[in-house]
Amino acid sequence: MHAGDLPDGLDSVEEVADVRYATADTLGDAVDGADALLLWDFFSPAVRSAWPRCGSLKWIHIAAAGVDSLMFDELVDSDVIVTNSRGVFDRPIAEFVLAQILAFAKDSERSRALQQSKVWQHRETERIDGAHAMIVGTGAIGRAIATMLTAVGMSVSGVGRTQREGDRDFGTVYASGDLGAVVARADYLVLVAPLTEQTRGLVDDAVLAAMKPGSRVINVGRGELLDTDALLAHLATGHIAGAALDVFDTEPLSADHPLWTAENVIVTPHMSGDASGWKQRLAELFVDNALRHFKGEPLRNVVDKKLGFVV
Amino acid sequence: MHAGDLPDGLDSVEEVADVRYATADTLGDAVDGADALLLWDFFSPAVRSAWPRCGSLKWIHIAAAGVDSLMFDELVDSDVIVTNSRGVFDRPIAEFVLAQILAFAKDSERSRALQQSKVWQHRETERIDGAHAMIVGTGAIGRAIATMLTAVGMSVSGVGRTQREGDRDFGTVYASGDLGAVVARADYLVLVAPLTEQTRGLVDDAVLAAMKPGSRVINVGRGELLDTDALLAHLATGHIAGAALDVFDTEPLSADHPLWTAENVIVTPHMSGDASGWKQRLAELFVDNALRHFKGEPLRNVVDKKLGFVV
Repeated sequence: MHAGDLPDGLDSVEEVADVRYATADTLGDAVDGADALLLWDFFSPAVRSAWPRCGSLKWIHIAAAGVDSLMFDELVDSDVIVTNSRGVFDRPIAEFVLAQILAFAKDSERSRALQQSKVWQHRETERIDGAHAMIVGTGAIGRAIATMLTAVGMSVSGVGRTQREGDRDFGTVYASGDLGAVVARADYLVLVAPLTEQTRGLVDDAVLAAMKPGSRVINVGRGELLDTDALLAHLATGHIAGAALDVFDTEPLSADHPLWTAENVIVTPHMSGDASGWKQRLAELFVDNALRHFKGEPLRNVVDKKLGFVV
Repeated sequence: MHAGDLPDGLDSVEEVADVRYATADTLGDAVDGADALLLWDFFSPAVRSAWPRCGSLKWIHIAAAGVDSLMFDELVDSDVIVTNSRGVFDRPIAEFVLAQILAFAKDSERSRALQQSKVWQHRETERIDGAHAMIVGTGAIGRAIATMLTAVGMSVSGVGRTQREGDRDFGTVYASGDLGAVVARADYLVLVAPLTEQTRGLVDDAVLAAMKPGSRVINVGRGELLDTDALLAHLATGHIAGAALDVFDTEPLSADHPLWTAENVIVTPHMSGDASGWKQRLAELFVDNALRHFKGEPLRNVVDKKLGFVV
């Protein structure tokens, strides 16, 4: 099921299976009798609507890392296997996060504004070596971010389900329930956790208030991880010095949303993972899984439907 | 000699020497009888003007990596030792170069413009892993840039005085005379060479024409390394996809200069090395050298005056 933007490279699946293409409107008819579904348009609620006609379905593959928009109780309780596109977005998102950190540290937004005004105004910028990034989300993408930031001389820690030391990528992982108590360590708070009941609204007013003055927030996970109104309030006082947001409660972000014009906020349209070649990589992963499915082999990237991510 | 912005931390020199502070206007009187000179305002031509009164001078320390503005024949031919601030700017400039590469790869300028117009427009961006940066200048700053870019998964090569293989930071170093023949390898051409007779105008129309279509230029060295008019012409055709320029033939850049408004050009005001703490580090390096000077010990960062940089 797609919204008109399917990649090339699905031919090899057509050789071994009867493939039907559908959009949200036509999914019900198309899925009737199907045993596998590729969900390309991963924000669509169409599967839930078509669920009564999904009786023969054994497997859903989603062209995204986050499965939150797909999930609903009947699917969780069913025997349908859900797989995701874990791995495709790791490296691009890590690069994107580093780009945003460096944009803040090197005062790039102000440089652009001064350039537009043709004003030559020397400033001191910040060094990133030694700055601390706390990464909420210890899955594959969070680990790629940690590796990248460590490589350029930053220190990192993770925030996950349980506290632990000696993690190979993060060193220390804090429990998400302790975030308010430990977040003052962060110069950059990077959100990349899956959206679950445990993470929804995790970065609330109290957590933001506990952050170090002058620190910054980067969200490449899901908008609902973060209390946007509280963030705007802490940006307005200057307590939070900046935010780079690639995801939002409602996407696309509405034209009248205050985030578009808030000072020191970088808005990007949910594109952090979508670097050159991403559709091809998504297609390859699906094709690989599809061939496994038809051969009866174990699938890659099986999501724990209760937890909401690949364990 | 300064222009009004001296750092703290020079007290320990005052304990061992008679220290006079001067600006360009008063340098002649101040330098008469002095045996050491700290040149804080490193773009000033004041030393050349005051040269007839520098008869007792044994040592000049310059608060910069590049000594091109200081040098003149009488100084080169004299016994006066020149030291520079090699090392202070390495890491900040490496961070700055990476920031500019990521800004291009992640289409950050376009994201800002779309944000200003409140337009949600998803795009595919570029990955930097596997992209090739050719770094013109194999001194300490060039090496710090090479190390940083390698750490984030880019491949690098250097351009220096002589061709060689197996360099610990660059792998291959090409001879600057061969630049036109090898530059097509570069996705990013990074200029950080000292300005000398060999490097002035090195990146001319022919070199720019030989670059890979869609490649980009980053100049953190000296404006005169690059033919600005030729660059503007290749940007206008789109052959060169972008340029991030921190240095210019004339600084400050004049308000009517076409670079301010050229498409895909990032203009910054000669600040790439000036990250938090830079003045303190400059002062520490000078104080260390001054104490060595007064004890008769060998100085750090002695410039080969004929070559124009520290060997």
